[in-house]
Amino acid sequence: MSETPLAIGVDFGGTTVKIGVLYRSNLIDTAPPIATQDYEGPDELIDAMVRVINDLREQHPGIAAIGVGMPGFVNFEEGIVHNLTNVRGWVEIPLKQRLSDATLLPTVVENDANCMAYAEWKRGSGRGLNHLVAITMGTGVGGGVIVNGKMVRGCQYGAGEIGQTSIDYQGRVGAYGNKGALEDYVGNNEIAADARARYEQAGIYKNIADCSPAALANAATNGDEVALQVWDDVARKMATTIMNCCWLLNPEAIIIGGGVAKAGDLLFGPLQTHLFSQLSGPFKDHLSLLPARFGSEAGMVGAATLALEEAGFAV
Amino acid sequence: MSETPLAIGVDFGGTTVKIGVLYRSNLIDTAPPIATQDYEGPDELIDAMVRVINDLREQHPGIAAIGVGMPGFVNFEEGIVHNLTNVRGWVEIPLKQRLSDATLLPTVVENDANCMAYAEWKRGSGRGLNHLVAITMGTGVGGGVIVNGKMVRGCQYGAGEIGQTSIDYQGRVGAYGNKGALEDYVGNNEIAADARARYEQAGIYKNIADCSPAALANAATNGDEVALQVWDDVARKMATTIMNCCWLLNPEAIIIGGGVAKAGDLLFGPLQTHLFSQLSGPFKDHLSLLPARFGSEAGMVGAATLALEEAGFAV
Repeated sequence: MSETPLAIGVDFGGTTVKIGVLYRSNLIDTAPPIATQDYEGPDELIDAMVRVINDLREQHPGIAAIGVGMPGFVNFEEGIVHNLTNVRGWVEIPLKQRLSDATLLPTVVENDANCMAYAEWKRGSGRGLNHLVAITMGTGVGGGVIVNGKMVRGCQYGAGEIGQTSIDYQGRVGAYGNKGALEDYVGNNEIAADARARYEQAGIYKNIADCSPAALANAATNGDEVALQVWDDVARKMATTIMNCCWLLNPEAIIIGGGVAKAGDLLFGPLQTHLFSQLSGPFKDHLSLLPARFGSEAGMVGAATLALEEAGFAV
Repeated sequence: MSETPLAIGVDFGGTTVKIGVLYRSNLIDTAPPIATQDYEGPDELIDAMVRVINDLREQHPGIAAIGVGMPGFVNFEEGIVHNLTNVRGWVEIPLKQRLSDATLLPTVVENDANCMAYAEWKRGSGRGLNHLVAITMGTGVGGGVIVNGKMVRGCQYGAGEIGQTSIDYQGRVGAYGNKGALEDYVGNNEIAADARARYEQAGIYKNIADCSPAALANAATNGDEVALQVWDDVARKMATTIMNCCWLLNPEAIIIGGGVAKAGDLLFGPLQTHLFSQLSGPFKDHLSLLPARFGSEAGMVGAATLALEEAGFAV
């Protein structure tokens, strides 16, 4: 049986572009990150990415494919990046074509949250499953959906925008006019703002920096009542969205990653309670609520894995 | 090319069991309905169904398969009906086996809302699509989901329970402990109760019977302000759930059937407004909001069509 080859995984972010080499489930090398904002436009930045990729290929012969995870909308089939709001000049860029022309390697370009879901499905907590929903928590809330053993991309490659789904039809008005979007309640900044307000109500003044998920996890671990309430409230809101995914898709697993998920039992404990109390038997009896295996490397791992599969390799 | 054969479609309800003969997209015959509650238990009722099926086969030679749509949970693969709350004795009944033993025809048993979705997908408003969500509105709110050109059943055949998804994380507590379930706001009885309360607030006393969806549609058509508000409110709540399906699955179409959908533009007008104002481009630019083609015959049409496909016939 032939060995699974190496692949390049690229995690393109508004601050840095991270590039690594994947062997099976492990990144065996990562290049120093590229500072996204140091480049005038797509041409210069793509050139920089190609230089890093070429360096990695010299050090690791046998790289067989390149996968790129991008924020925002991507036409997966054509590999076109439609529009990056935070990176200048990135409008309708045929990134897949550009990279494969420059490297002569099969290349895929996919939404970054889908890459995270892919990493968990193929290499992480969701291995072997056919129906799962992966959620990544940070400043924004993203996700990816696997149904019938296939990634769900939808008709315009937009599927998986879990953070934009509503938990309150009369709720806060979000970036797209959508009311009650989960992201507008449990994004890092919203958690911090809600926590500060709760502290203030309890007569305690906190800087917003002391209300980060990490600080709130630390406080809750030390028995801070307000922080515990914050985590319960975050869990209650997340449980609503997850419950909706369960009633709609009846998945085997929900996988949660990203910064907020690092709170561990502080989040997963009340989340399990709020979620399972709102589902009937067939929806919860075979449901696992799982922390993600991968952290900040998920995008690279998922993109590289997807690239290998699309190039026809077993992973 | 061989002709698509005839098939039997059964729509099993708590009041009646309806059995018809499908040819392509049309029911060419339907038997007088069986009164579900007239039978002591599953054995007697299944015998009655078999007698009707045999009669129809005598009149229509060439029937090639049987499909049954059932309320509640069904194990599609094994064809087992887990539990009917409204029909005595129906616990863990291997209906597929029983019917195929008695008729020697390939048989499938599926959830009734999935059958409705199947009918719309294969024979109705969703023909040729690969990504759609079908919703049926009545006393309850059900649905079915098609993703990547396949029915979504999930790991325990429970998928598509759109009426149980939440529109308000602090909302009304539903039958399964779930808060804010759509069905608890826009089921027929809830619409009627909300309408009566709105009329009362406006100083108008109405019987609950005068607040049926049909009566409210009639009133709204005649310019009744309260009734128009009721429809706008129903649309606003439904738009939230539909929007969630869009952000999550990016479908090509949402298809709405059942009694409430008969309100036509009174519902679809405000629904389109509330829905499209809460979606970004890729989610709405290729989205169609469509009335179902089939009415009360959807279950029979979908079950029979599914039976033919599962038996290997092109439909």
